[in-house]
Amino acid sequence: MRYGLVGSTGRMGQEIQKAFVDHTLCLTVNYEGSWSDGGKPDVIMDFSNPSCLPETVRLCREHGAALVIGTTGLKDSDFEMLRELARQVAVVQSYNFSIGINALKIILANYSKFFEDWDLEIVEIHHNKKKDAPSGTAIMLQNATGRPCPMHSLRIGGVPGDHNVIFSNEGEVLSFNHRAISRSVFAYGALRAAEFAATAKPGLYSFEEVLQCSLKKS
Amino acid sequence: MRYGLVGSTGRMGQEIQKAFVDHTLCLTVNYEGSWSDGGKPDVIMDFSNPSCLPETVRLCREHGAALVIGTTGLKDSDFEMLRELARQVAVVQSYNFSIGINALKIILANYSKFFEDWDLEIVEIHHNKKKDAPSGTAIMLQNATGRPCPMHSLRIGGVPGDHNVIFSNEGEVLSFNHRAISRSVFAYGALRAAEFAATAKPGLYSFEEVLQCSLKKS
Amino acid sequence: MRYGLVGSTGRMGQEIQKAFVDHTLCLTVNYEGSWSDGGKPDVIMDFSNPSCLPETVRLCREHGAALVIGTTGLKDSDFEMLRELARQVAVVQSYNFSIGINALKIILANYSKFFEDWDLEIVEIHHNKKKDAPSGTAIMLQNATGRPCPMHSLRIGGVPGDHNVIFSNEGEVLSFNHRAISRSVFAYGALRAAEFAATAKPGLYSFEEVLQCSLKKS
Amino acid sequence: MRYGLVGSTGRMGQEIQKAFVDHTLCLTVNYEGSWSDGGKPDVIMDFSNPSCLPETVRLCREHGAALVIGTTGLKDSDFEMLRELARQVAVVQSYNFSIGINALKIILANYSKFFEDWDLEIVEIHHNKKKDAPSGTAIMLQNATGRPCPMHSLRIGGVPGDHNVIFSNEGEVLSFNHRAISRSVFAYGALRAAEFAATAKPGLYSFEEVLQCSLKKS
Repeated sequence: MRYGLVGSTGRMGQEIQKAFVDHTLCLTVNYEGSWSDGGKPDVIMDFSNPSCLPETVRLCREHGAALVIGTTGLKDSDFEMLRELARQVAVVQSYNFSIGINALKIILANYSKFFEDWDLEIVEIHHNKKKDAPSGTAIMLQNATGRPCPMHSLRIGGVPGDHNVIFSNEGEVLSFNHRAISRSVFAYGALRAAEFAATAKPGLYSFEEVLQCSLKKS
Repeated sequence: MRYGLVGSTGRMGQEIQKAFVDHTLCLTVNYEGSWSDGGKPDVIMDFSNPSCLPETVRLCREHGAALVIGTTGLKDSDFEMLRELARQVAVVQSYNFSIGINALKIILANYSKFFEDWDLEIVEIHHNKKKDAPSGTAIMLQNATGRPCPMHSLRIGGVPGDHNVIFSNEGEVLSFNHRAISRSVFAYGALRAAEFAATAKPGLYSFEEVLQCSLKKS
Repeated sequence: MRYGLVGSTGRMGQEIQKAFVDHTLCLTVNYEGSWSDGGKPDVIMDFSNPSCLPETVRLCREHGAALVIGTTGLKDSDFEMLRELARQVAVVQSYNFSIGINALKIILANYSKFFEDWDLEIVEIHHNKKKDAPSGTAIMLQNATGRPCPMHSLRIGGVPGDHNVIFSNEGEVLSFNHRAISRSVFAYGALRAAEFAATAKPGLYSFEEVLQCSLKKS
Repeated sequence: MRYGLVGSTGRMGQEIQKAFVDHTLCLTVNYEGSWSDGGKPDVIMDFSNPSCLPETVRLCREHGAALVIGTTGLKDSDFEMLRELARQVAVVQSYNFSIGINALKIILANYSKFFEDWDLEIVEIHHNKKKDAPSGTAIMLQNATGRPCPMHSLRIGGVPGDHNVIFSNEGEVLSFNHRAISRSVFAYGALRAAEFAATAKPGLYSFEEVLQCSLKKS
């Protein structure tokens, strides 16, 4: 796979380069300038910031390249731009490229009904610099279960992010536990999204849809 | 629901009576003798031993009662008897009535493909009286993932039974953890099976199928 | 060891008999009546209720037997009675005979200073019938650390009782996790207390002191 | 505190600079050359490699600076050099500067006797690049308990390093769980060692002794 990278010198750009080590970086865009090996990328990765989006979209059109976009803080007008582009190429957009969290969301949405008469509580643990509680991910997981429940937020040390969804009845406990090991967590999800987008039909996809599609392939 | 109970004085029979506290026991069968309030049971529970099966089946036919059977060590001829009965009434047969373990088996069978390029290991913990390792449940869960993996068996103190199925890649860990709290674990599953069987069409069902059916109801 | 048991027919009395299977029950006291094999007990166990205490103390004096008392709700006048008795025989009194919890309390009291610049939070999990939160044990453990900290109480299913004391700094997490498996948890601690009391000098001992003494023996 | 840093441009040197952000770096030594602000350091940090040791020792003597050394693979002749230096200044030497692991080692050495009739097993989890099993840290913790026990090694994904020491009897489980979050784990321990060394009497100290001393201060 040949890929382009918007924001290649930033922290996220560097994590992506590590995870994409078996693929060819052929185009970069940075504040300092751009570079290209002259060939066409199959997919362009953009985990930078909304102000870069117009240039990113222009490059996707120019090269007929798919787009994987993990930029946060997108506005309605940004989504409009993405929908336009998605008529021409595959676009994968998500605010959370963790494979584990997205898989868990799908599993909870499909199977929480098994446990509808069990008790449910969620515990999440993050580093002590994190200001909001509960975490956005914890709220997303709770929504996936389809019912309110007590949430517990621990803010300790340098923990990157644990999420535990715990069901229990009189005789048993079943818990779904996710631990982010490091910042590279999103980069491996981005790689899976890129591999999907490089061959997918035009359209706007969520990361959950990318995962769901992987189930259909034998 | 009105239910009959084969082996009502045994340990399992007593756990069932505790879990079925909102339902009416109307028939019991024991080595010491039998008792009936004269009415018909909707379902008969048998968690005793294979030698009781012919009498159990006879009672189901006599009353048109469904059957939930958790007896272990059934032979081919016993299954033949159950299939016969299943033409007339609903029969639920399983060696493991834990809701959590059966739910986990379904989830792993359906979604392990998300993690096919992640590492996988299973850890199970049981009391120090347990002789076999890995546990039958651990093997069943591993089969559900569709691939071999390292298994670790701890045999310590009085732990009733923990099973942890752990997936990990470079950036995250997702683990599915089940803990049996007590012997009552199976009785609550048996209750769910009984509620299903009391209104189901004739047929031979696994406990997994009972759970799957609960997903279809809104 | 020969032991007497006040309240032998109650739930706690039965758990004690299971844990004391290698020792000889030679005296019982119940509402229904008393029984003795005619010989002297080395120690008398009382996990019943405060109203039995005068008779228990009388029996200890009569036989020169040590006392292990786990009765809850003792009043000042009850403690006065125990201090009196302790001039003559060894008396072990505690509201919590869990070896693990008492060991953890000692460890936290001695070593929390290692982590004085780390974050600290406590998570405890109990069954959904438990009304108070946080649990008395969680408060006791927090006191042992010598500093206030956030406490999280989960009330789910039939969990007998988990306590997790979690320290973390930027680079590591150290947690001390206790799980009660069953009601027998206290009976094994009571056995250790009885073995101590049977040979100890007269005096009033806490269960922590019993454990501390076990460290001094080689 | 004013500190010198041997190997300031290496990965470990950079982690140390992050952890020592409230202190003044006044001297660096690298293959590329050396730098000094002209003043005296209170302590010199060396987490580089054995070949740098003679120059490090020379600098400690010149400045009367204490030494914290975490270099691995030291030979007898290197220890001889450290013992010589320790007549003049405080020297802290360890192969593992994790506060949590060293604290756990002390706790297990002092209190495993509480659980001498309980079962014991150790589970450690590391990334799939780690070749040896069980880990050196797991062996060290087992030695601290004073008895052999089953060890389980998981090698999955990118886990930096978990160690769980699990005791259990019939009624309860007590586990001591350590998780390394990141490579910075050793840098915070090194900081504690430096703060100790800067004011300690001459002598050769282990990191365990540094921790033990912190208990004596009120």
